[in-house]
Amino acid sequence: MKEKIKQKQTILGIDPGTRITGYGAIQNSQQGLHVLDYGCIRPPVKEELNNRFFIIYRDLLLLLEKFQPDVVAIETQFFQKNAQSALKLGMARGVILIAAKNHDIPIVEYAPTRVKKAICHGRASKYQVQSMVKRLLGLSALPEPEDAADALALAICCANDSTI
Amino acid sequence: MKEKIKQKQTILGIDPGTRITGYGAIQNSQQGLHVLDYGCIRPPVKEELNNRFFIIYRDLLLLLEKFQPDVVAIETQFFQKNAQSALKLGMARGVILIAAKNHDIPIVEYAPTRVKKAICHGRASKYQVQSMVKRLLGLSALPEPEDAADALALAICCANDSTI
Repeated sequence: MKEKIKQKQTILGIDPGTRITGYGAIQNSQQGLHVLDYGCIRPPVKEELNNRFFIIYRDLLLLLEKFQPDVVAIETQFFQKNAQSALKLGMARGVILIAAKNHDIPIVEYAPTRVKKAICHGRASKYQVQSMVKRLLGLSALPEPEDAADALALAICCANDSTI
Repeated sequence: MKEKIKQKQTILGIDPGTRITGYGAIQNSQQGLHVLDYGCIRPPVKEELNNRFFIIYRDLLLLLEKFQPDVVAIETQFFQKNAQSALKLGMARGVILIAAKNHDIPIVEYAPTRVKKAICHGRASKYQVQSMVKRLLGLSALPEPEDAADALALAICCANDSTI
């Protein structure tokens, strides 16, 4: 992706989940990192599961259209204690994949420990991640919910990735 | 979905997988069941995993456009021995979901034993499923691969479902 290097690069981090999907959009330029927006998609829990995935997909498309990211960053998922949770997480990942591919946006994946190391250390707590994200992006408050902080951490990890 | 009852109903069964995704399209009318097409999507194994899912998505869209099904039938997946397999299967299911929802086509799910019971008995072997699918649809040969036979079985199960 070397040829994609631009003066400004917009990165969208996504932390998927069926209840809460966190997102964080940042801009990486010579002036440093700058947050564009962060938050989460919360499909109504009363919705049937398939509809919840479609709501995630639809809202992701809106985010991709709004921020026009150069790259989407997600976590590599290797282990899940529970196969049923893994199946649901897989569905959420499939949805993100199609949304990004439909916009021709490359997806990069980072292992959770690598994301933590990029901003803190490999065994950082959720609170430490939130604190470091706040500091690195000059936010006035801790980014909430944790899922949004995780998504911003992913975007920061991607911004620091010299291979992109 | 009662109001959707038509003289002819087209059903697309899909048996997802990252290596082979089987599909089977049938028409259900007062004259009985009639096979339209069956086969499988085999993304090149050398392709990166994310690209394989996108190939499945793209090919599914072509099938939906070709057959304009009234309903898409997939298997309910409850248990997977391996969480990593469950994650991949989840991604494939997410992809099917978005393809169908984007065409506003309802998805119905059936437990594997229900599908087998609909055409044979709950503990039918792969070969027995293929044989019964051949017989019920008046095919001249066993439907191959097994994934396509499973997809046709799903479509037959859906055709026999009086709630749809």
